[in-house]
Amino acid sequence: MSDLLRDRALELDAADGLGKHREKFALDAATVYLDGNSLGALPAHVPARMADVITREWGELRIRSWDESGWWTAPERIGDRIAPIVGAAPGQIVVGDSTSVNVFKAVVAAARLNGDDRGEILVDATTFPTDGYIARSAARMTGHEIVACDPADMPAAVSGRTAAALVNHVDYRTGRLHDLPGITAALHAAGALAVWDLCHSAGALPVGLDAHRVDLAVGCTYKYLNGGPGSPAYLYVAERHQAAFDSPLPGWNSHADPFGMTPGYAAAEGAAKGRVGTPDILSMLALEASLDVWDGVDVEDVRAKSLALTDFFLECVRAYVPAGRVRSVTPEAHAERGSQAALSCENAPAVMAELIKRGVVGDLRRPDVLRFGFTPLYVGFADAERAARVLADVLAELPA
Amino acid sequence: MSDLLRDRALELDAADGLGKHREKFALDAATVYLDGNSLGALPAHVPARMADVITREWGELRIRSWDESGWWTAPERIGDRIAPIVGAAPGQIVVGDSTSVNVFKAVVAAARLNGDDRGEILVDATTFPTDGYIARSAARMTGHEIVACDPADMPAAVSGRTAAALVNHVDYRTGRLHDLPGITAALHAAGALAVWDLCHSAGALPVGLDAHRVDLAVGCTYKYLNGGPGSPAYLYVAERHQAAFDSPLPGWNSHADPFGMTPGYAAAEGAAKGRVGTPDILSMLALEASLDVWDGVDVEDVRAKSLALTDFFLECVRAYVPAGRVRSVTPEAHAERGSQAALSCENAPAVMAELIKRGVVGDLRRPDVLRFGFTPLYVGFADAERAARVLADVLAELPA
Repeated sequence: MSDLLRDRALELDAADGLGKHREKFALDAATVYLDGNSLGALPAHVPARMADVITREWGELRIRSWDESGWWTAPERIGDRIAPIVGAAPGQIVVGDSTSVNVFKAVVAAARLNGDDRGEILVDATTFPTDGYIARSAARMTGHEIVACDPADMPAAVSGRTAAALVNHVDYRTGRLHDLPGITAALHAAGALAVWDLCHSAGALPVGLDAHRVDLAVGCTYKYLNGGPGSPAYLYVAERHQAAFDSPLPGWNSHADPFGMTPGYAAAEGAAKGRVGTPDILSMLALEASLDVWDGVDVEDVRAKSLALTDFFLECVRAYVPAGRVRSVTPEAHAERGSQAALSCENAPAVMAELIKRGVVGDLRRPDVLRFGFTPLYVGFADAERAARVLADVLAELPA
Repeated sequence: MSDLLRDRALELDAADGLGKHREKFALDAATVYLDGNSLGALPAHVPARMADVITREWGELRIRSWDESGWWTAPERIGDRIAPIVGAAPGQIVVGDSTSVNVFKAVVAAARLNGDDRGEILVDATTFPTDGYIARSAARMTGHEIVACDPADMPAAVSGRTAAALVNHVDYRTGRLHDLPGITAALHAAGALAVWDLCHSAGALPVGLDAHRVDLAVGCTYKYLNGGPGSPAYLYVAERHQAAFDSPLPGWNSHADPFGMTPGYAAAEGAAKGRVGTPDILSMLALEASLDVWDGVDVEDVRAKSLALTDFFLECVRAYVPAGRVRSVTPEAHAERGSQAALSCENAPAVMAELIKRGVVGDLRRPDVLRFGFTPLYVGFADAERAARVLADVLAELPA
């Protein structure tokens, strides 16, 4: 059984059109890295680029780099690099701040865009916690009420009282993919705006922001986009909302004439309205360099491989792991699955610690979820087979 | 005249106890860098440190670095490195986000700390613009009214209606140093809270946050602290306010148990309450490394040299530049001067462009201010003399 699956893994890797991208990343043969949904691996060309940014752009050009090295325009320029990955036309995404700060901008702006007579904001009840915390703060400050709701129930819960809904495209814990087109359409049918959090989908599957008429979106860049630890997040404001977009954080970088330094605020046009303060250039330019790995990559191909990888991993788990020791909490149906496999397991903390010791790096979501993220640009089928095999070994040695 | 001042510059440099720190920075003899009040120079050891952060901590340890490389605790750890430079005991400063975002946290928190019966927030009328823009947004969201006021007039303007005042310690344009102890005491006497912006003072002169019982403060780290382009800002919340500090941006990084990932928010204790989302580790660790240049440096010595430098520069300007061509808008009195000299000048944009061509790098604040920042750790008296001499040359060649 083991030999059959190993052979099949080798065949699948040999036939994998994306396999050639693996060499773009700093990876070691001793490790199966299945935590790219938490921190993406280092693209191999980034250290040389950052040495140049630090030594020449900062060290030699210093202040001149704001113009001459394109620092000032980086937030919009990098936004336009992310745009095709999430299905957005240029001019609608700006990079900067953390995901949490962008959730605040997006939720407050959505509440303001949708008038004063809608007092409710729906929030994904299984959301990554920061979205819920920040949405509550935004609602408190705009006089709205938060209604927590499973994303699947939002089409039934939305009403004429709903200003907007904040939804995660892929659930961080279970890996469940929510129905972005359907939920967005249902929200719109009731006159509500759709704010999507793309942290666990951007770079792993097609998003189609423009095609599905999403209103606002946020996402991080350090997972499937490999931007580096804490690389800046992004904010998407659909072009049709930009004129009325009213930021709660109108810092000088979003001013129409930032170096006019006038006491009165006048917002810039376009995506730059989402900027706040001085951008964190080192983190930002590492992200920009990292995005080079997407040149020539079609997100549809990434999605096909992602599903094949998680299918194959779950098949290997079923084959190797004794029945009853783990239970997948990731949906079987492709239409409901992101790019990770989450396994509920007794003794999960000890199991994950041992997996990591043996070179299979996933992560734990308390209390009982083993999370394995599959980044199609650098994870292969042999990795998936090895991860399942080592998991079976670990479980065989640990008490049930 | 010129020879006398040149000789004196050499004597002053020879006697300068801080002169030895210059070699810690990447500087070139062709340039007099007087824009460290906009972007501090690169500390020479930072490139090697960042190569290790990127290649080993991110590239090899990957996700493990959040624990093993101390990434997770960096915001508080680096805050404690900044603390002695601004006169704060440990545990009150956290690093992260931009100055603008921290102004938002500080102003909203100050308004909430000071009850509901005080409807006004005073804002420095000559403030760096972002503080005013953000304070207006904060006031709009908390139901307060902004009253713009010269800092010197605040002791007269503060009243029982004032919840808080937001004041710049040093004016970014003129270099005027405001009376932090006196204004803070006057605000307190009326029951108002004092929120100080230290962007143009931290690292250039003693601040004494604890000694003067400042309530909240913010500052950037890329000027006199040399943290790199857009390095993260910081937030100071005096220990006595931490329990009641109520952040408008309660992201998961400020949760008491962030990896519990519970739907309900429960704030951490201490400075961590000011955190929001995932910290921008590359920018943050460049800052941390940069702070090494402060080892063994006494801010009182920095202040003494800063005043001597700006005195000497202004003396050289008076000696070299024909009368009437420039006018200092920086106060003569030491008690009212930060660490820059700002000269009002006809044709200022053309003059600054030519200065930069000739290796004297200051900057322009529209419409007519030439700004020269003096960073005592790497600027010497010969630099000051040369800057004044080149300025005189440029003015002699340009029409009055």
